[in-house]
Amino acid sequence: MSSSSGVIRQLKVAIVGPGLVGAALVEQLIAYRSSPRYELLPIKLAGVINTKGMLLENEVSKANSLSELQEALSKAPSSSLDDFVDAFAADSKYHSVVVDCTSSDGVASKYPSWLKKGLSVVTPNKKGFSGSQALFNEIQELSKGPGEPLVYHEATVGAGLPVLSTLNDLIKTGDKIKKIEGIFSGTLSYLFNTFSHPSAPKQKFSEIVKVAKANGFTEPDPRDDLNGMDVARKATILGRVSGLPLSIDTLPVENIVPKELQGVQTAEEFLSKLPDFDGEFDKLNQEALDNNQVLRYVAVINFDGESSVKLMKYPLSHPFASLQGSDNIIAFTTERFPNPLIIQGAGAGAAVTAFGIFGDIIKIAERTWAGKL
Amino acid sequence: MSSSSGVIRQLKVAIVGPGLVGAALVEQLIAYRSSPRYELLPIKLAGVINTKGMLLENEVSKANSLSELQEALSKAPSSSLDDFVDAFAADSKYHSVVVDCTSSDGVASKYPSWLKKGLSVVTPNKKGFSGSQALFNEIQELSKGPGEPLVYHEATVGAGLPVLSTLNDLIKTGDKIKKIEGIFSGTLSYLFNTFSHPSAPKQKFSEIVKVAKANGFTEPDPRDDLNGMDVARKATILGRVSGLPLSIDTLPVENIVPKELQGVQTAEEFLSKLPDFDGEFDKLNQEALDNNQVLRYVAVINFDGESSVKLMKYPLSHPFASLQGSDNIIAFTTERFPNPLIIQGAGAGAAVTAFGIFGDIIKIAERTWAGKL
Ligand SMILES: NC(=O)c1ccc[n+]([C@@H]2O[C@H](COP(=O)([O-])OP(=O)(O)OC[C@H]3O[C@@H](n4cnc5c(N)ncnc54)[C@H](OP(=O)(O)O)[C@@H]3O)[C@@H](O)[C@H]2O)c1
Ligand SMILES: NC(=O)c1ccc[n+]([C@@H]2O[C@H](COP(=O)([O-])OP(=O)(O)OC[C@H]3O[C@@H](n4cnc5c(N)ncnc54)[C@H](OP(=O)(O)O)[C@@H]3O)[C@@H](O)[C@H]2O)c1
Repeated sequence: MSSSSGVIRQLKVAIVGPGLVGAALVEQLIAYRSSPRYELLPIKLAGVINTKGMLLENEVSKANSLSELQEALSKAPSSSLDDFVDAFAADSKYHSVVVDCTSSDGVASKYPSWLKKGLSVVTPNKKGFSGSQALFNEIQELSKGPGEPLVYHEATVGAGLPVLSTLNDLIKTGDKIKKIEGIFSGTLSYLFNTFSHPSAPKQKFSEIVKVAKANGFTEPDPRDDLNGMDVARKATILGRVSGLPLSIDTLPVENIVPKELQGVQTAEEFLSKLPDFDGEFDKLNQEALDNNQVLRYVAVINFDGESSVKLMKYPLSHPFASLQGSDNIIAFTTERFPNPLIIQGAGAGAAVTAFGIFGDIIKIAERTWAGKL
Repeated sequence: MSSSSGVIRQLKVAIVGPGLVGAALVEQLIAYRSSPRYELLPIKLAGVINTKGMLLENEVSKANSLSELQEALSKAPSSSLDDFVDAFAADSKYHSVVVDCTSSDGVASKYPSWLKKGLSVVTPNKKGFSGSQALFNEIQELSKGPGEPLVYHEATVGAGLPVLSTLNDLIKTGDKIKKIEGIFSGTLSYLFNTFSHPSAPKQKFSEIVKVAKANGFTEPDPRDDLNGMDVARKATILGRVSGLPLSIDTLPVENIVPKELQGVQTAEEFLSKLPDFDGEFDKLNQEALDNNQVLRYVAVINFDGESSVKLMKYPLSHPFASLQGSDNIIAFTTERFPNPLIIQGAGAGAAVTAFGIFGDIIKIAERTWAGKL
């Protein structure tokens, strides 16, 4: 089990933020322990930290379920993220990956320091890749050469859907990307799939938003979905990965919160006033339906023109028009795929997001020891 | 550029069969030579062999274009595949991958011997994975442990679409596959997309087949598409990769060549008699359209019931119904994706197939040297 360089064939996983997604990942990693694959590719959950405490390998190994781990974590002493990470960096026998499952800017800003310590990074947190271009570049620089640690962030766009891996394959093999177009918000997908389709029962837009919020499908303040900023972050990531220096500060983003409601104080007030604007949404929708079109909120990353995030109309025969539920969809138009390569499916949810993260962890495990070395 | 074990950081690529697909791969690898990525991940075209002759590294390196390489190959001395492969196996400094771009059973049966010599294998050739289960198992056994060479065959299903990589990620991370359903033949996709959709102009099935053949969209004898055997091979591969021991000998496969025409001698005779059966195809189609359905020729790999390859009806709102041109589409229904994860796009063609192969080669290059080893 040991390679020629003395590193033992086991990858250690340190999770920062066992929240919704992090907890699902913990469950998948605990299930993996008892799968026959573990023998071939030992990937070991070896640390967990949240804002209150941390557990290192010995304690984590004792937990046989998520609830046992959560119980132990709730009793753990208070901790510092730097000490936590250093515990893994200090291990010269094992390669470790730090998995950032927070949505914190502060945590993301630490990736360069982790990489410099030889730790790989996997994350669903968009902040490190859609914030400052300098941070994005530094992360790339520190993880591209032979012998350097690795960075994967599949789950930052489309959760577990193979979006970034496909884009990277296209780019690395020399394809020319012409356009990337897609629906990247589960919430906005759900709202418009429900609101805008000839076969959908007629409902007021405000009513659909209200029900979605009640079912937990939106952010606590639905304006945080409707303003398009989350989609803009994903568009920025797709652009940057393809070499377009997009920025959420300059990308044209259509905020579909009515102007008059952008400044109101609370989510409740917003929801109570949204019905006043149903007429406008109905008018837009009717214009589309009258032309056999539907409304969809999309990001378009255009390699020959302007990129943007906006509400668009698509004909009924378009793959975006028949989307179901809260699915995401993404279409890559390239030199080799003039008729686009399309991927669709759940783009949010704890289990599928953790799947995207786990897939990245497996790639790192495989890249750091398999094959003829 | 050299790793601790003395292997130099360069992957050598040996192509068997620079035909349609192999030639496109040669072009992509020659273009890669002058891309900035080559420095970071040196993947070197180092040998080419067809049924007439072979070129090894020195001669291949001199060719600056596909045509120069073809010119040199046409003048090369006659060769043996075993000698060709042994030239790469003998190299202890470099890891090499043999890329089988033939459709030969005989070549596929050699993979175990290549793997035993420490060579990795990449291929779009379905024969090694859809023929005998024993050969399939042997290939898996020889390529699964640490330090063993690697095998990838993404392009055997859906050409360059990320089908097998996605399936493998789902399986490795512990998802439970429930159903895999898709349209896996570009030809049958084209025929039924053209024949069976309410917005398609009315045409006779025999006429569509005739035009498709004239445009080179079918096999020389279109019955080799219509008999479903190519789809059955892909279904077998998808099943086996997921642990279902399917076999083309036992899988129920619907041959849509009318019984009376299955035995006729020539493709020409078949085509001249096919119009006699247009009434039957029209009847099936009308039954579907009358119920707001379309006909699609699909493979269904069912993990709780019987798998099969057959002509099916789908409602207009189903993603399979709005497929365009000769695109493939595949839907994975799993525990984590009860609403399926869907991938669609061109599933045939030299450039996209070579892309699928090149993506696999890059994975091998990355797995055999990157990261902290
Ligand atoms: N949910 C999805 O469907 C989805 C899909 C794609 C991507 N994502 C991304 O996945 C990430 C996690 O989402 P989530 O829904 O799991 O969030 P969440 O439930 O709010 O969990 C966040 C976790 O991070 C911890 N945390 C925050 N700041 C920290 C710090 N400075 N040090 C240590 N721990 C810290 C929190 O600890 P405490 O419990 O102590 O506060 C909590 O455990 C986000 O970046 C999100 O955008 C989510
Ligand atoms: N075309 C597609 O769109 C597509 C899509 C997916 C997968 N595939 C698969 O890709 C593979 C290649 O397809 P293709 O269309 O490129 O085929 P092709 O044009 O017929 O090329 C076959 C090549 O293999 C060579 N060859 C055959 N037997 C050989 C042997 N024993 N030793 C050395 N060379 C040998 C041939 O050499 P000669 O020229 O000397 O005869 C020729 O160069 C097939 O397995 C096919 O199923 C193709």
